[in-house]
Amino acid sequence: MPTPLRIGLVGYGFMGRAHSNAYRKVNNFFDLEYRPVLQAVCARDKEKAQAFADTWGYASVETDWKKLVARPDIDAVDICTPNNLHKEIALAAAAAGKMILCEKPLSMNTAEGEEMCQAVENAGVPNIVWYNYRRVPAVSLAKQLIDEGRLGRIFHYRAVFLQDWTISADLPQGGQALWRLDAAAAGSGVTGDLLAHCIDTALWLNGPIKSVTAMTETFIKERKHNLTGKVEKVGIDDACAFLGRFANGSLATFESTRYARGHKALYTLEINGEKASLAWDLHDLHRLSFFDYGDDSIVRGWRSIHVSDGDQPYMKHWWVPGLAIGYEHSFVHQVADFLDGLAKKKPAGPTFRDALETQKVCDAVLDSARSGEWRQVG
Amino acid sequence: MPTPLRIGLVGYGFMGRAHSNAYRKVNNFFDLEYRPVLQAVCARDKEKAQAFADTWGYASVETDWKKLVARPDIDAVDICTPNNLHKEIALAAAAAGKMILCEKPLSMNTAEGEEMCQAVENAGVPNIVWYNYRRVPAVSLAKQLIDEGRLGRIFHYRAVFLQDWTISADLPQGGQALWRLDAAAAGSGVTGDLLAHCIDTALWLNGPIKSVTAMTETFIKERKHNLTGKVEKVGIDDACAFLGRFANGSLATFESTRYARGHKALYTLEINGEKASLAWDLHDLHRLSFFDYGDDSIVRGWRSIHVSDGDQPYMKHWWVPGLAIGYEHSFVHQVADFLDGLAKKKPAGPTFRDALETQKVCDAVLDSARSGEWRQVG
Amino acid sequence: MPTPLRIGLVGYGFMGRAHSNAYRKVNNFFDLEYRPVLQAVCARDKEKAQAFADTWGYASVETDWKKLVARPDIDAVDICTPNNLHKEIALAAAAAGKMILCEKPLSMNTAEGEEMCQAVENAGVPNIVWYNYRRVPAVSLAKQLIDEGRLGRIFHYRAVFLQDWTISADLPQGGQALWRLDAAAAGSGVTGDLLAHCIDTALWLNGPIKSVTAMTETFIKERKHNLTGKVEKVGIDDACAFLGRFANGSLATFESTRYARGHKALYTLEINGEKASLAWDLHDLHRLSFFDYGDDSIVRGWRSIHVSDGDQPYMKHWWVPGLAIGYEHSFVHQVADFLDGLAKKKPAGPTFRDALETQKVCDAVLDSARSGEWRQVG
Amino acid sequence: MPTPLRIGLVGYGFMGRAHSNAYRKVNNFFDLEYRPVLQAVCARDKEKAQAFADTWGYASVETDWKKLVARPDIDAVDICTPNNLHKEIALAAAAAGKMILCEKPLSMNTAEGEEMCQAVENAGVPNIVWYNYRRVPAVSLAKQLIDEGRLGRIFHYRAVFLQDWTISADLPQGGQALWRLDAAAAGSGVTGDLLAHCIDTALWLNGPIKSVTAMTETFIKERKHNLTGKVEKVGIDDACAFLGRFANGSLATFESTRYARGHKALYTLEINGEKASLAWDLHDLHRLSFFDYGDDSIVRGWRSIHVSDGDQPYMKHWWVPGLAIGYEHSFVHQVADFLDGLAKKKPAGPTFRDALETQKVCDAVLDSARSGEWRQVG
Repeated sequence: MPTPLRIGLVGYGFMGRAHSNAYRKVNNFFDLEYRPVLQAVCARDKEKAQAFADTWGYASVETDWKKLVARPDIDAVDICTPNNLHKEIALAAAAAGKMILCEKPLSMNTAEGEEMCQAVENAGVPNIVWYNYRRVPAVSLAKQLIDEGRLGRIFHYRAVFLQDWTISADLPQGGQALWRLDAAAAGSGVTGDLLAHCIDTALWLNGPIKSVTAMTETFIKERKHNLTGKVEKVGIDDACAFLGRFANGSLATFESTRYARGHKALYTLEINGEKASLAWDLHDLHRLSFFDYGDDSIVRGWRSIHVSDGDQPYMKHWWVPGLAIGYEHSFVHQVADFLDGLAKKKPAGPTFRDALETQKVCDAVLDSARSGEWRQVG
Repeated sequence: MPTPLRIGLVGYGFMGRAHSNAYRKVNNFFDLEYRPVLQAVCARDKEKAQAFADTWGYASVETDWKKLVARPDIDAVDICTPNNLHKEIALAAAAAGKMILCEKPLSMNTAEGEEMCQAVENAGVPNIVWYNYRRVPAVSLAKQLIDEGRLGRIFHYRAVFLQDWTISADLPQGGQALWRLDAAAAGSGVTGDLLAHCIDTALWLNGPIKSVTAMTETFIKERKHNLTGKVEKVGIDDACAFLGRFANGSLATFESTRYARGHKALYTLEINGEKASLAWDLHDLHRLSFFDYGDDSIVRGWRSIHVSDGDQPYMKHWWVPGLAIGYEHSFVHQVADFLDGLAKKKPAGPTFRDALETQKVCDAVLDSARSGEWRQVG
Repeated sequence: MPTPLRIGLVGYGFMGRAHSNAYRKVNNFFDLEYRPVLQAVCARDKEKAQAFADTWGYASVETDWKKLVARPDIDAVDICTPNNLHKEIALAAAAAGKMILCEKPLSMNTAEGEEMCQAVENAGVPNIVWYNYRRVPAVSLAKQLIDEGRLGRIFHYRAVFLQDWTISADLPQGGQALWRLDAAAAGSGVTGDLLAHCIDTALWLNGPIKSVTAMTETFIKERKHNLTGKVEKVGIDDACAFLGRFANGSLATFESTRYARGHKALYTLEINGEKASLAWDLHDLHRLSFFDYGDDSIVRGWRSIHVSDGDQPYMKHWWVPGLAIGYEHSFVHQVADFLDGLAKKKPAGPTFRDALETQKVCDAVLDSARSGEWRQVG
Repeated sequence: MPTPLRIGLVGYGFMGRAHSNAYRKVNNFFDLEYRPVLQAVCARDKEKAQAFADTWGYASVETDWKKLVARPDIDAVDICTPNNLHKEIALAAAAAGKMILCEKPLSMNTAEGEEMCQAVENAGVPNIVWYNYRRVPAVSLAKQLIDEGRLGRIFHYRAVFLQDWTISADLPQGGQALWRLDAAAAGSGVTGDLLAHCIDTALWLNGPIKSVTAMTETFIKERKHNLTGKVEKVGIDDACAFLGRFANGSLATFESTRYARGHKALYTLEINGEKASLAWDLHDLHRLSFFDYGDDSIVRGWRSIHVSDGDQPYMKHWWVPGLAIGYEHSFVHQVADFLDGLAKKKPAGPTFRDALETQKVCDAVLDSARSGEWRQVG
């Protein structure tokens, strides 16, 4: 029987649900040496915390994360709070010797992230950041194809993350579900929220980014703030795009926005190599597009691969060919890999240290946008 | 707190997993008056039954379904066996006063199905058949659009279910995962397995089918039989197509096969109405295609609707717009609706009686294929 | 310099334009031994005939096709009239020793077609029927792939031709552009107009069809007739579908309609073979979809081939890769092949005799629809 | 009868064919007051010029463009030479009082272009530049939708032009078909060849670009030069990307490359507005994608509009709905509009002056790429 791993969850929003679902499902589908136990959930509002615990089966609730972190019956702390609390909780959890699973982005900035890395490394605690898109099977398959050398020399990497949910000027900022629009809570706008996902995947698939030139824009300059009740200046970036150069010589074009009417959460990436190219799209996340120049010339074309067969990443654990899994499964895979990494003492990424690289690119991007100059990363 | 509903599951294959997952998840995402409890799983092989129970959290195991059906601590029996056992188990379960959730197709033929309907109706027990595709949100949205009158008079309904997994002549028939190739266990081939899905959805969306002319084929005539170890004649249909007429005057064209190279599980349907048309495809199950003749003529076109917004069927229970759910969620929705139907005393369909209509079409189709003549349905 | 081939065109409607354009363009793009000369156009209305001649550069006009056929300065007669005139003109042209290029379908029925075949064969005149879709490069590529054996044993052939332009009950029948709705002029409705295209391609790609069972429908039973001014019974089929068996053992499912809201001219075909499958769609006619089971399993998928490279059929004559040609070019290719066949004394198809096979399938389909019984073809 | 307009064509390559085809076809499909006459073609190699004249029906040939320009029987000079000859020929043609139709890009740089503008304006001769993509019907429809105000405030404009034909290091540069790889003949690489198309369309659809930051790359640093026979440094840009700001406040992201494996000529553009978005793709040039936020929320989705109906731009001149036209037709439309502009004395764009704006953006982009700094346009 698998060893219990007692989870203490801080925060119960969208990500709290996604993680809880993953913890509950993982052992039904994966044969693992560890089994997550929903030990406690922590939120300032006791009633809401209890309701969440009832729905998801958490054994207990806390209203002060410091108490949660201090509990001896907690093995791992899962941080699902707004970004501005990541560092403090992570430092306390590391000091308490807890494993840490932290939502992305790692931190408000590189300096904070560096502190967090040192904390977990000094404490020697397993740690991971929830950049879940790495573990969509189609994206994992992309990684496999690249690692097999099927693309050859890489010339181009392009990615966008397009949404349209903040176009209305009537949407307020701050508080609860809208903390992502509040610079004080989020640090940045789309850069940390969306572009960070694109960057994490890119670094994983294509290696380090060396330099960038960037542009940001805040289309709606003022919004009512939910915490103050007043119309206040908007501090986040509504859109952010950058050009850059990877260490391997390929060119980068990245863009993210919440003002692309018609796109709910369109994260797309495309990589062009000498021998082959590939592309992926979150709206149809179960497919990978692949072009192989090695095909006979008269029948060359982009293949639309329905990534649902047992020999494709993660898929033997699910249903039968042709039957898609969805967004939530990327979190299940992350938990499975994290637990497997514990068992094999081979940490699954992205660790805090891996995620710090994404933070460095984000910082360089924001700094370039402010200064109008190219910036080296790191 | 929701009332427990103790489930006894018979069979632990692909569908046993899909149903168990649905029972485990449903209360995390839906606010319901009932809560499924995984009380017992039944299979002839005790060790395998126990392994399944361990993986999924069933409280106990049985090796004789008659014992399971007789247990007073079971409220509902879920039948996931090969088709040839549906009737016997259902009759016993009804006699024992259990609710029944039966895998599709309802029965080996109409006569069996009629017996089963009478049994559950005489016993007054809630009953449902797992035609899960009705509850893919895009398909449910199609139903809503039709019910709102957006399509107008219907001219055409076409559906196909295309697979390619039995093309190899080396694939044996019979036993375990391959009972679907054994006529004795399955009754028919693609007609009951695949076409039945297409027919259930069609009857739900477009009303009764009156008459059909059909064609079947068995491409590989003999296969090794896993139960006898000998090469035996293949009794199932590898492919089945039919033309027909709906009661509402529209024309039907249906096809199913396991010999369509390149298609894993491509269930597609399209409905053409006077005012609008719609189409759906299981390989990209989170999208609905919709053409509205009412649009300005210069910008008329098929819309690809990403069915992931909170105002679309079932989706408010899941994630945020743009983030797809998958195949398994159709089962969660079916459980949610079944439980909600119990609470409201308004049975969710398809009941056994509803599913019998699909059986009648299947029988007419197979009879037409044998005789080469048009057949009335029912 | 190429030898002039003097064309006499009968009819100046949609097809008259398509053919004239092909004659004018072919020598700009193809290096041929013959060169079409626009010698005369014939139509009952002299003014309209002259206007057409002015627009397209025809050297003269006629108002009586019998005079045109008799002119010694005409080498080839191109028949673009409604279907009910094909036979009479073809017989006269053959008797006059003219080559004949006849619009599809060949004839009103098999008996007429047989007469026409005998006439051209007895006269020994080159002849061809304008089933132009064979010569869309993507369809020609499909033929090449099949001939190379890339598909292996064929299991399924399915085709549809879906339009929506006659849904309005206010549309009249008969006369000018609407002769296709008049049974007296057209012979049949969608069967001869649309399904005949699907059948011609199918016979070319997949060999003879042996037997069929069919269904037709006339959704709008009465329409005003343009020639009589009265509301009259509609004699054509608005929709026609059939199932059938090819001589090679594969199964056929065909459908055509003018009541499929949202489809302007959606001719699609798909062929499933043991080793590979392919699909094509007139709305995106420059692409061929191809699935090769021989690909590595993890990267198998349908390829969308943009058929615009120089090594793909006909494309070296046009632009550069990625730049699509359109519908009209299929006619240019047909003229090029016809002229090349003349030069090489290897007639390009479909000849009248080839096209008669399509007529036989159409007749069997219509007869089956009337009788409700399976029909052998021919 | 239309007035003859005698064309003198300089150059006979890819564009010479595309223009000649357009001149020959335009009066068959458009009712115009002018009719192009193929008076003379000019090329240094007399034999090749004569062969071209024979194929296309040019009445005469010249080997010296100065003679052509001076001929009194020429009304309009069409410049299809490499870019480095545009200015000299245009200046001479203007001085001779000829109308000028000049291939894009207008010139090697802004200074040259300004001279050319002044020359045609001083001479008062009609002039146009062949930025043909404006006149693909789907792109023209995009313009119409924007002008009707259907998009509202614009937030984003993104465009790419991706090719893959120069990836091989064995491809030489210079001479004939490969002059586009020779900086001396082409001025720049993808910037003038591909990005210029994207910019022209963008300025037409979305107004002026104010500022840019750019990046270029030459992946293959040396290639054999066809004119010298030696391996020489490559002077062109293989890839170019830029970020920028439009005068209307929207953000620009542009990219072009010849190293995007799998893309033959993938020019795509997308515009995101407050009320609607649209997208287009040269590989499927007959379609426009359109998302209208005004649609009912449950059926919102991107519409794929098959731009082939008579009420869509240019399409009433061609075939029937559903039947696509291709790449070459954009040139026919440009000739039709140019001739119509002559008749109405309302010049069709882009004039030299319009095209100069694109040149200014290209220069700013290249300058930014060199300097690593943001650049103002103009």
